Amino acid sequence: MATQALANWSSSLEYNALSAEIIHVAVRSFYNWTGCVVGGSAHPAITIARSALARFSGPPTSRLLGSEGSIDADAIHAALFNGIASHVHDYDDTHLDTIIHPTDGAHRLSAPGHGRCKVGRAVWPEHYDVGWHITSTTGSIGAAVAVSKLLGSSAPQTAHSIGLAATQVTGLREMFGSHTKSFHPGRAAQNGLLAAILSGEGYTSSAQVLEAKRGWANVVSSAQRLDAEVASLAPAGRWEIAQNAFKPFPCGIVVHPVIDGCVWLHGELRRQGLLLSEGEYEIQEVRVTVHPLVLELTGKTAPRNGLEAKFSVYHGGAVGLLLGRAAPAQYEDAVVVDERVVRLRERIHATAGENLRPEECHLAVSVQRSDGSTTVIEKHVDHAMGSVERPMADVQLTDKFVDQCIPVLG
Amino acid sequence: MATQALANWSSSLEYNALSAEIIHVAVRSFYNWTGCVVGGSAHPAITIARSALARFSGPPTSRLLGSEGSIDADAIHAALFNGIASHVHDYDDTHLDTIIHPTDGAHRLSAPGHGRCKVGRAVWPEHYDVGWHITSTTGSIGAAVAVSKLLGSSAPQTAHSIGLAATQVTGLREMFGSHTKSFHPGRAAQNGLLAAILSGEGYTSSAQVLEAKRGWANVVSSAQRLDAEVASLAPAGRWEIAQNAFKPFPCGIVVHPVIDGCVWLHGELRRQGLLLSEGEYEIQEVRVTVHPLVLELTGKTAPRNGLEAKFSVYHGGAVGLLLGRAAPAQYEDAVVVDERVVRLRERIHATAGENLRPEECHLAVSVQRSDGSTTVIEKHVDHAMGSVERPMADVQLTDKFVDQCIPVLG
Repeated sequence: MATQALANWSSSLEYNALSAEIIHVAVRSFYNWTGCVVGGSAHPAITIARSALARFSGPPTSRLLGSEGSIDADAIHAALFNGIASHVHDYDDTHLDTIIHPTDGAHRLSAPGHGRCKVGRAVWPEHYDVGWHITSTTGSIGAAVAVSKLLGSSAPQTAHSIGLAATQVTGLREMFGSHTKSFHPGRAAQNGLLAAILSGEGYTSSAQVLEAKRGWANVVSSAQRLDAEVASLAPAGRWEIAQNAFKPFPCGIVVHPVIDGCVWLHGELRRQGLLLSEGEYEIQEVRVTVHPLVLELTGKTAPRNGLEAKFSVYHGGAVGLLLGRAAPAQYEDAVVVDERVVRLRERIHATAGENLRPEECHLAVSVQRSDGSTTVIEKHVDHAMGSVERPMADVQLTDKFVDQCIPVLG
Repeated sequence: MATQALANWSSSLEYNALSAEIIHVAVRSFYNWTGCVVGGSAHPAITIARSALARFSGPPTSRLLGSEGSIDADAIHAALFNGIASHVHDYDDTHLDTIIHPTDGAHRLSAPGHGRCKVGRAVWPEHYDVGWHITSTTGSIGAAVAVSKLLGSSAPQTAHSIGLAATQVTGLREMFGSHTKSFHPGRAAQNGLLAAILSGEGYTSSAQVLEAKRGWANVVSSAQRLDAEVASLAPAGRWEIAQNAFKPFPCGIVVHPVIDGCVWLHGELRRQGLLLSEGEYEIQEVRVTVHPLVLELTGKTAPRNGLEAKFSVYHGGAVGLLLGRAAPAQYEDAVVVDERVVRLRERIHATAGENLRPEECHLAVSVQRSDGSTTVIEKHVDHAMGSVERPMADVQLTDKFVDQCIPVLG
């Protein structure tokens, strides 16, 4: 029933069912996604893929954002390249209930594509715990639904597109820290686009792929709650897109409270005259207390490059404290191996605090004054910038957008 | 270790390590695959896909076997179309230990591609029992290894291609009976080809995807024996390609003993003058005893079309008994709904025999003579034609090849 219900919902959804608030968050999602694609478009994960696959592209019809030409590839290749670029800096949006990055695979039509977040909620957290990258495993399904909507597919065709997309389960967490992590949402966009195109022409699949005994949810997760989630589809139920948050820092959101606190501490140290222009010499120790998940996901103490640094709470803290920023420029390889950053990273000690929420952290910086005495400055972060409680304002999204476009477009 | 070991094995494998016997079975595999692609090339699953995707193909470099032009698509699209065609009649080869159809995804270089059968053995049967279509889930990996070999990739590049391929886990058994079943090996071929092309240009993934804690084997199966399987790679160990069998009938091999016995009974009934040219009227009942797996996998009593009939032991038995053949022509939609076939199907009663092996069956046909008396003719099948014990001879493979080419090529 879940597959049919999702297909019926999408194919019958009309624009005037969307409230002004939902349209606003959809526009913010698309705007944020566009900036991420431009900002990521010069990364080696893109340039390698574009160069390797150039000879396979059909007649160009679709834009590769950030590239010099405005129309550079067929739609299927464009979905891959733009999808990789959107995720490569880990700077995209986040559906907070499931840590899905929802716009990556479904950028073509935000509202129906976000129906996949219901599918994600139905298998969260068991599916992620097994080892699947939930952004892309659900991304194929979201892209199929969104493109089917754009193609004007019927409900049965949409159900078959969900089947074709769901059978392409792309994304193992084992790939985190390599180029393949950002390949995942790109490939998911291709999977869903291909599924919608094929089913739109009569290609058949299962019409109950999500809920069948050996269907998607039962195969990829140890538990599933599809019926309840599908029953909560908006507008009668809840729009998942309203739970979408935007990242102020280009890494997994579990690191954001630490970075946010360290950026604040950077300002405080400067205000108190405790931070020399050279930075790190006076900082003796940084004690960081975080939710256990932070150490599990981002416990790399000695990252070797920008991709690995995204999985290092130590790197995020060090650049926040030392440089007062954690934008893509602070995740470039040269910064990751910079001697000052490395030395400060080594002075950061992170421990798990059992009573902390994931969005919470406590920081204590020990600084030696010029007279030899030691000052400890503490900071408790309840909710990081970019959370639902402290969302990025439109003007901050604009700053982020421009900040990503300048290095690429000038 | 398994990922590196497989990559090292493939990249260092040399042609002169192959015995004449292995080369012969590789040639048979490729020959059988080629016939299947030609024979499947006019199926709607191909014609829909080709029509839907024509506008996305890059400059044509690769042959679509069975089509009128000889060079029709770029290599990535050709891999999809040829892969779909190779499997659409369920007439391809079978690695008997795992029921993988090994040449589907790895046709470009049979010997290294068959290394995937070791990966399949490492998770068989748990992986299949969960609900995965093992032909395509391992097919991506086999294609990546095979194409990496053709590209002359290094062992590290090959390891990354395995990572990129393994993260694209394509194929749910829920799709059986629809066009998407044959999409699986086609997409697997694309997944592996893409993986090898990207890793050959420096795209990175995990170098321990198969064995990592949250790697492929642990995520897609409840048990795995990778170390033992990788340790048994040929030529020091065993060539899995030597376990490759070729199908005399275009459906899952679990039905083959019943079809084989029914074809024999057809001849016996004719010899005894008990089969009118019209066929079914004198057959009152057919009692079929099979391994329980046969009913689980192929228990459809009333298939509605050719794809569904492949999952009906009743249809296979009926056409074998009535027509003395079970070639692709006997799985066309018109035959599946033919009144005589339907009536005979309804007289077949299949039950599970606990003491039977999967490759064994017992048949008893009750026939009414013209004088009103009833004769029962029995047949016990120990091993079906096409099994390792009764392999198809080269001349039978040639007949199968020609039989598939004639309707397509004339």
